[in-house]
Amino acid sequence: MKIEVIKNVLKYNKEQADKNRKLFKDNGILVLNMLSSPGAGKTSLIIETIKRLKDTIKIGVIEGDISSTYDAEKIKYFTDNVVQINTGGTCHLNAGMVAEAVKKLKIKKLDLIMIENVGNLICPVGFDLGEDYKIVISSVNEGDDKPVKYPPIFIKSDLLVLNKIDLISISDFNQDFFRGKINDLNPGLKIIKLSCKTGNNMEEWIGWLAKRRKGKSN
Amino acid sequence: MKIEVIKNVLKYNKEQADKNRKLFKDNGILVLNMLSSPGAGKTSLIIETIKRLKDTIKIGVIEGDISSTYDAEKIKYFTDNVVQINTGGTCHLNAGMVAEAVKKLKIKKLDLIMIENVGNLICPVGFDLGEDYKIVISSVNEGDDKPVKYPPIFIKSDLLVLNKIDLISISDFNQDFFRGKINDLNPGLKIIKLSCKTGNNMEEWIGWLAKRRKGKSN
Repeated sequence: MKIEVIKNVLKYNKEQADKNRKLFKDNGILVLNMLSSPGAGKTSLIIETIKRLKDTIKIGVIEGDISSTYDAEKIKYFTDNVVQINTGGTCHLNAGMVAEAVKKLKIKKLDLIMIENVGNLICPVGFDLGEDYKIVISSVNEGDDKPVKYPPIFIKSDLLVLNKIDLISISDFNQDFFRGKINDLNPGLKIIKLSCKTGNNMEEWIGWLAKRRKGKSN
Repeated sequence: MKIEVIKNVLKYNKEQADKNRKLFKDNGILVLNMLSSPGAGKTSLIIETIKRLKDTIKIGVIEGDISSTYDAEKIKYFTDNVVQINTGGTCHLNAGMVAEAVKKLKIKKLDLIMIENVGNLICPVGFDLGEDYKIVISSVNEGDDKPVKYPPIFIKSDLLVLNKIDLISISDFNQDFFRGKINDLNPGLKIIKLSCKTGNNMEEWIGWLAKRRKGKSN
């Protein structure tokens, strides 16, 4: 019985995700599902991206948290196109929550939506939101063993951003070990090493985004 | 129907947790449920604790991970009394998993069991394992806003260890803000600031533990 319930939840989620995907496609919007453990730098990456692209493209943000509007308020300082989802304790976003949030964004005007998922390396992985890409953000301070301990998120992601690279010289983070473990799980997964704090190598991330921009048909 | 299933799971968990608690009490064992997001330093704190106390008391460790034996192997270097639980994807330990793991420890000889929960600031909170204390480990690099974004774990914990304090001077972590937000959620919650890496203030943690040791009756 329990398994049946979970199957139904995932089936419903997939149907809703497909509707979201169609809506995003019809409006020429690139949509990113941004995943990480708490404190790896999802909000910082979103803010630094808006700062660099706000004069070029229209960006919307969907902020997922179990409670509070703390991150949405930080982001509101840089754009009006931000919606907060409070999951009320649930440990991940689902496609239905995103569908509701999208109604509050002016999607006809948007080129890019960044969805900040709940900070959690495990639970969000199984829930398709209708995004184009899943992006996992690791940070140097979390250590180089995260791919070993939380494989699914690294297997399912389309890009890995390694944040807080400014701290690499004072950490024990072994980049060869990390790269090797990533290759075992998801061969060839692109890793962009950057620092949201210092701005180091942000241009590689911005370049990755620019190549994937869809363009409005109208 | 879904809610009923969840209620049953929690009811069963509570019953099993009470059995674990009785077993631990009957054997005079102090049991800690150690919670944090990935990479905050649960394994490091366990290893540094064993190093300092292994000649004084007998310590057992239960390692929870969604997969791999990576942490258990690290800990095995310092003690033989370690059991790995692989949850197979589940985002938290439950009392039944701990009951199974405990069978593999020589509990009659042990004074302390440290249970390293799955790295996750959300899901483990609701699952009593039969422990004496829930200890949440935050790290400076995760940022000072974690109490705002993940309240339940800070409300339910009996002690907060703030790790990686050696990095405080090069971080934006505002200790007054953090303390204030903790006080809003869990007034008076003790915070021990330390660094597993440099050993800074480890004596306060060891002192906290020593005061709570139960002693064998036989």
